[in-house]
This record gives sequence, structure tokens and C-alpha cells, in this order.
Amino acid sequence: MYKIESTQNEKVKYWSKLKDKKTRDEEGLFLVEGDHLVKEALKYHLIKEILTLDDNSYDVPTYQVTNEIMKKLTEQQTPPRVIGVCQKLKEHEVLGSVLVLDEIQDPGNLGTILRSAVAFGMKNIVLSPTCVDLYNPKVIRSTEGIFFPLNIIRTDLVSFIEKQKMSNESYVVMGADMNGEDVGKIIFPEPVILVIGNEGQGISKEVRECIDTFVRIPMNDFCESLNAAVSASILMYERSKR
Amino acid sequence: MYKIESTQNEKVKYWSKLKDKKTRDEEGLFLVEGDHLVKEALKYHLIKEILTLDDNSYDVPTYQVTNEIMKKLTEQQTPPRVIGVCQKLKEHEVLGSVLVLDEIQDPGNLGTILRSAVAFGMKNIVLSPTCVDLYNPKVIRSTEGIFFPLNIIRTDLVSFIEKQKMSNESYVVMGADMNGEDVGKIIFPEPVILVIGNEGQGISKEVRECIDTFVRIPMNDFCESLNAAVSASILMYERSKR
Repeated sequence: MYKIESTQNEKVKYWSKLKDKKTRDEEGLFLVEGDHLVKEALKYHLIKEILTLDDNSYDVPTYQVTNEIMKKLTEQQTPPRVIGVCQKLKEHEVLGSVLVLDEIQDPGNLGTILRSAVAFGMKNIVLSPTCVDLYNPKVIRSTEGIFFPLNIIRTDLVSFIEKQKMSNESYVVMGADMNGEDVGKIIFPEPVILVIGNEGQGISKEVRECIDTFVRIPMNDFCESLNAAVSASILMYERSKR
Repeated sequence: MYKIESTQNEKVKYWSKLKDKKTRDEEGLFLVEGDHLVKEALKYHLIKEILTLDDNSYDVPTYQVTNEIMKKLTEQQTPPRVIGVCQKLKEHEVLGSVLVLDEIQDPGNLGTILRSAVAFGMKNIVLSPTCVDLYNPKVIRSTEGIFFPLNIIRTDLVSFIEKQKMSNESYVVMGADMNGEDVGKIIFPEPVILVIGNEGQGISKEVRECIDTFVRIPMNDFCESLNAAVSASILMYERSKR
């Protein structure tokens, strides 16, 4: 256990830079805040260092820091008691069904979708380059630490879908859209590439052209659409029932 | 169309106070931000006054204001172009099925649940006194304006449930819990009182004692629970299929 008391310490300055996407990308690291998230990340052996207000011991280099230092490292009004310096997830080859997110903008929505993906056994997630950063602290908090088992890739969607369609697996590309078929009346194909669009605009024109079939969640006429995380979760839930 | 240019104007000071729950409660008013929300509220004849940066005309008293004034009235980094001063919803007697929210804390979750309630035809919502304020600007934004047709009541949950059970309708009280019956294998009773618990703790002890049957959403072992708004939405979706 090391002790750091100055907010001007070089280590603290380094960790603080991980609040910026640019540094996270360069270093391949991000911060996870709070006991629950740190524990989840430890299970997957992704934590490099731990900063804590307490004198808990961990199996990785641990730094006891001050409340002032915690404040410098978080955007939360109440700073966490523990922060982990965590390695970014590795991107793996995609085998089997995939959830594709086309420009999801809200960090809370992305985090919630990832949590539901784990719950409903959707192992592969592809984010468009325009999606909010996966390692944005608000995204990470919204996952409640339930995203580490996923294979999450950020890439151009059209090339990704075209590549998958060329593979030996016979993918069906399905898009969520209010004019699609009732999800209660279809049988989910396997493997499927399930596409969820942006919160305001839905699925972009280019990606729309790659879609084989559209699916909708039946709802009341009062309501034009659901929250994107709710739509994605209900579709993954329906698929998990097959 | 009136013009106001000073942030010190008495009207501006009054509107600004509506950012506080206390004033919202005293005045029975709240602010809705952005074109979409204002239009939705106008459909339900709930808007008393409109403040706008533009020279649009509306059927209610309209004030053209400055960007500085807008900034004073919102918590958003990019101030909206239009704000409506809106009457709070009236509470009506509860007839038929009800969604009961026991200490939902996150404004985004509450807003998302209300939007899903409209989508899936759940007309009555009961909030525990410990739920986040319905008129919190983040709650309102998360509804995307889709909550005006609901009957939303804030009251003590145990007394509410006991009162409904004494009524002529034969209510079944159902709680969302990971140890309940698989929602895919049950037939939803009608009318139902469907209870969703707090994001961290689930349903409180006192409310738990009023529950007739528990229901769960089947999921992967990796995942202990879903986001509360996702759980509530999937259960309302399943109910809407009956």
C-alpha cells in the first residue's frame, strides 16, 4: 500500500488525464469508480492499480489517496471511496449473433443496453464510430459493472455488416423500426445482426440499405417510440426466449 | 408577444424559482423545455405561458426572451429555444391496473418508465413519497413528452395497496423480484398492481408484505439484475400482450 496526499503528484496527474477520451485511447486504460465496479473488473483481471480512501488490500498495486484526489478524478458530486485503473476490453472476432448500435448518443442508454445484452446472452456488440465513447464514465456507471464478458467492437457499420454477410454463417440483418413486423409474431433468425438506431433519428440511411427485415415492438398509438435502451432490451429479451 | 430582455425581470425571477421543487409544489406549475415537449403539453392544454427565443406565435401568452434568460431557467448546457410554463397533472381516482414504483431514485429511469407506461397501456402510476420528483427537469426530459395521458399519484404505497384491495375490483398484487415466477410462464391477472422496487434495494420490506405473487424476467446467470426502467418496461410489455 502506497500513500499519496498531493493532488499535484505525477501519478494523480496521469490518472486525471484518463478522464479524457484521447488519453484513454492512447493508454488503453480507463477508470472504474466505486466498490461494485472495481470488484466486477477484478473478476476479469482487468485492474492494473487501485486508488482508495480506505486501507483495504487488493492483489494489485494499491494507493491510499485523499478525498481531494478522488474529487480530482471523478465527475460525480460525491466522490467514490475506490477507483480502479482498468484495461480496455480487447476486441475479438465476431462469431454468432450481434447487436449493432447505430449512433447511440446517450451514455445512460449505452450502459443500460450493455447490461441487458449480458442478461439476455447477446455476446457481441458493434458500435458505430458515432456512438458515445464506451469508456465515458457515465456509460461505465450505467452498466453497473455488467459488461466485462462482452465482445465490444467499434467500427464502420456498413463494412462490418457486409463482411459478416460474406462469412460462412448465414446472417439475417434485422432493424428495429416502428414500421416493421410485430416482434411477437416472428421467429428470431440465428445468427442475427440486430440493429438499433439513434435516439432521435433511428437507423441511418446507409445502414438501412443493409437490412433484410424490420421488426417493431407493438405499442399504443399514443406513443411513437420507446427509449432506445428499452427497445434494444425488449428485442434482446424476445430473442433470448427462442 | 411580449419581450423581456433582463434576467432581473420579475417574471424571469418567478420562472427561475420553478427549478425548485418547493416552488413547483406551491404553484402547481413546472417548466417543460424544448419544442417537442412544449408541443406535447399544448395538446393536453396544460401550457399557461411560453418563453421563446424565436418569434413563433402560440395560443397562450408568449414572451420573447434572450439566450441569457434561457440559460437562467435551464440546467442544460445548451439552453432550449423554447420553454413552456406547464400545469402539473391532476391526480384522479385509480380504476384498473396500476404500476407502483417503490423509491425509484434515478430521474432518467422514472422518465423512461412513464414513456413505456404510455406505450404499453398502463394508465395509472403510483409513486412512493421517496421516489424522485416527477417534475424534476431530468424526469420530464426523459419522458420525451410522453407522459401527459397518465394518471400519476404520489402516496404512501402500503395504504394505497390496502385501499385498492378493499375495492370491488379483485386486484392481484405482483412484485418484480429475481426469485419470482418466470414472466413468460404466467398469465397476467387483470386488474394488477405491479410493483417495481428501488434500483439498488428492490422492493421495501413493508411493501413486500402486501405482495401476492412475485414475477421475474428470465436472464443469464452472469447478470444479477436489469436496469429498473428496463425491468418495468419488459413487464408492462408482457402484460400488454395478454
